[in-house]
Amino acid sequence: MSADIYPHLKASCADAWEAYIHHAFCRQLANGSLPEDCFRHYLTQDYLFLIHFSRAWALAVAKAEHLDEMRHAVTVTDALLNHEMALHVKYCAEWGLTEDQMAEVAEDPANIAYTRYVLDRGHSGDLLDLLVALAPCVIGYAEIGAWMVKHPDTRIEGNPYRAWIEMYSDAEYQEVAAGARGLIEKVAERRIGAEPIASGRWNTLRQTFETATRLEIGFWDMGLAPARG
Amino acid sequence: MSADIYPHLKASCADAWEAYIHHAFCRQLANGSLPEDCFRHYLTQDYLFLIHFSRAWALAVAKAEHLDEMRHAVTVTDALLNHEMALHVKYCAEWGLTEDQMAEVAEDPANIAYTRYVLDRGHSGDLLDLLVALAPCVIGYAEIGAWMVKHPDTRIEGNPYRAWIEMYSDAEYQEVAAGARGLIEKVAERRIGAEPIASGRWNTLRQTFETATRLEIGFWDMGLAPARG
Amino acid sequence: MSADIYPHLKASCADAWEAYIHHAFCRQLANGSLPEDCFRHYLTQDYLFLIHFSRAWALAVAKAEHLDEMRHAVTVTDALLNHEMALHVKYCAEWGLTEDQMAEVAEDPANIAYTRYVLDRGHSGDLLDLLVALAPCVIGYAEIGAWMVKHPDTRIEGNPYRAWIEMYSDAEYQEVAAGARGLIEKVAERRIGAEPIASGRWNTLRQTFETATRLEIGFWDMGLAPARG
Amino acid sequence: MSADIYPHLKASCADAWEAYIHHAFCRQLANGSLPEDCFRHYLTQDYLFLIHFSRAWALAVAKAEHLDEMRHAVTVTDALLNHEMALHVKYCAEWGLTEDQMAEVAEDPANIAYTRYVLDRGHSGDLLDLLVALAPCVIGYAEIGAWMVKHPDTRIEGNPYRAWIEMYSDAEYQEVAAGARGLIEKVAERRIGAEPIASGRWNTLRQTFETATRLEIGFWDMGLAPARG
Repeated sequence: MSADIYPHLKASCADAWEAYIHHAFCRQLANGSLPEDCFRHYLTQDYLFLIHFSRAWALAVAKAEHLDEMRHAVTVTDALLNHEMALHVKYCAEWGLTEDQMAEVAEDPANIAYTRYVLDRGHSGDLLDLLVALAPCVIGYAEIGAWMVKHPDTRIEGNPYRAWIEMYSDAEYQEVAAGARGLIEKVAERRIGAEPIASGRWNTLRQTFETATRLEIGFWDMGLAPARG
Repeated sequence: MSADIYPHLKASCADAWEAYIHHAFCRQLANGSLPEDCFRHYLTQDYLFLIHFSRAWALAVAKAEHLDEMRHAVTVTDALLNHEMALHVKYCAEWGLTEDQMAEVAEDPANIAYTRYVLDRGHSGDLLDLLVALAPCVIGYAEIGAWMVKHPDTRIEGNPYRAWIEMYSDAEYQEVAAGARGLIEKVAERRIGAEPIASGRWNTLRQTFETATRLEIGFWDMGLAPARG
Repeated sequence: MSADIYPHLKASCADAWEAYIHHAFCRQLANGSLPEDCFRHYLTQDYLFLIHFSRAWALAVAKAEHLDEMRHAVTVTDALLNHEMALHVKYCAEWGLTEDQMAEVAEDPANIAYTRYVLDRGHSGDLLDLLVALAPCVIGYAEIGAWMVKHPDTRIEGNPYRAWIEMYSDAEYQEVAAGARGLIEKVAERRIGAEPIASGRWNTLRQTFETATRLEIGFWDMGLAPARG
Repeated sequence: MSADIYPHLKASCADAWEAYIHHAFCRQLANGSLPEDCFRHYLTQDYLFLIHFSRAWALAVAKAEHLDEMRHAVTVTDALLNHEMALHVKYCAEWGLTEDQMAEVAEDPANIAYTRYVLDRGHSGDLLDLLVALAPCVIGYAEIGAWMVKHPDTRIEGNPYRAWIEMYSDAEYQEVAAGARGLIEKVAERRIGAEPIASGRWNTLRQTFETATRLEIGFWDMGLAPARG
């Protein structure tokens, strides 16, 4: 069952999507030229991001109207909170960042803008609005990981960010993202039917996806800026 | 702009709708035979109901995605809290009920069930889900008022409930209800388009309307039962 | 860290608590005299209950302000949706109820009243309001299981409801309930400090607990009534 | 009845508060040196801001637990949507901006960050968390208006921003802000009692106020930057 909404969403803001997926932050990460303190700043904000990202997935559980949707969303939320955050903390430790330090840092406005926008789409709209706001992150990271491992400019050997590239290009993450995409398609089918563009909601959904993509670009911009204290 | 969703919703649960609109509580109210302590019990619960009903309309403001929707919903909320509740309190005083007394009474489970169901539909779904859950109350009361003034068994002169009948059959309330219906049709058009039954959401919307109607019946049943303390 | 709020909550509505914990439904279940179709009605509504109970725990994840709270709540939500619901369905099958059948049944108003009241306390208040509304269910069931196995009138051998009694008196469930109580105490300490009764919120919290207890009584009342079709 | 929480909140982040209240945007506005296209950019974003600010006040209605709180909040929401937005649109027209134009502009991330942060504090916390997140805007603007009219560097005659200065220094707006402050004090008293700093929640409330203040600074920073298209 699929509404095939995702390709339409991406196509509706192709320039923003391109700017997000191939952002300078990603390109520098792929070829290893990203300054290390940019990466540390990003890692710290990503730690704070994961907390609110988990909250958004928990909200999806509370908003779902079918058991299969609830189970999918709670499995993601549980994995994030009880598994992936620990991995992230362990990885950050390799970069000299302790969890206590990161928990003390103020969230960057670009971080707040994206996470709270997603949560607000969830509260103001329905499950589909929420999932469309989450899509650029969940599925976008898989696309970023996928182009990185195949791109000629990517350096794997000796790249300090190798573990990051491998995590998001890995089959395990690709599968998580494919699962999330499947969930979006199923909910789109249930909430608007097989022709998303013909729906009265299309314009709202398109705007949500574009705004979320724009805020992801802001997250990378933040990653390129040196930490502010 | 209209999706004409309301007639479809009513038709989808015609028996429950009939049981609600022509409930014994309403018939006894129309012919004046309703025991007065039933009416007092109803008035008290209705006072508590109005508080949570106002909260549901406020939630509609927070969930709306267009200024015209927000303005409609806030006008209703403001009228309820800053005007109609005072009228209700004044009317209750004529029945010997003070606001302090009513505020002390515990909400009846039937009251809780309906108001919190509406609020939950608002939180789990989008503005359309919320408005469909509100519809049986807002629009249904206008239909009840309308049949009452025309029905041969209705007694106006000397009916202790005359003011109630006149309030809901009055042009002013009929207009409020027509406005609410217009809002639902507009939001339905915007969220699912011109053919509500063809939408993937139809089954959910239909269930919401039926459940809300069923809970309205429970509210009348409560009205017929003597107060529990 | 503990505010010791739970004993105060129970003491503040001792009669209602007693009426809930030792309800006729529970006593008949303990001595095996409960009519089987009452139990089947209860099992079906409990299936529907678990869905909205899970949503309330998911809401707790979204509302939590500390990682330990989020992790506790998501672990409960995940266990409910990915483990306990399957056990419940399996148990219901032994009583001749299939999941498809149960999913088709309309929620009883008493069921709607309790679950949506809890969700509404979560949406209108903070995490503490939500947890206090959940407490009568989570912790109450452990108290019910605990008295049942020790009570002289309880029949274990040959009791058709033996499995139910054993599940809630079992160390595993007692531990889940103790964990939930610990969470409430911790959140109470963080949100209102060590003296809950002195807090400006005490009256609201007390009312929430009493209302939730009252709605649990309504759930048992529903369990005693024959299924309505 | 007052918890006197507001002075404590300001004192807890005195530097950020100072940076917000006397921001370069405000100083240039007061002496008339602010570039006009900065002001137009600000006006447009402020139009979009008012929509989500209204939603936050509507959420306060839905979350309130006392009728006086509900009435206060709905009066503010109604005034914003049915009165102040029209005034703002009229004022913007004098600057050559039409409502249709403004409604088309994408929200600046700094705008999204602040409004959605406030809404999220409302959804995750209770009414007090929400009001504390709203305070820097509602009350802060009155403080800004107040210093402007008294400051020696302020130019009133011939200042293109004279109307703005007069609006926020005017007795009418000062009264609105005083009312909002009264509401916060009342809710603080009800939710945490007379000693806010002794409350278990103090640290969370302090952080909320500081973050909201920081995001207000971001809003002024945005105002100084030229429009991005």
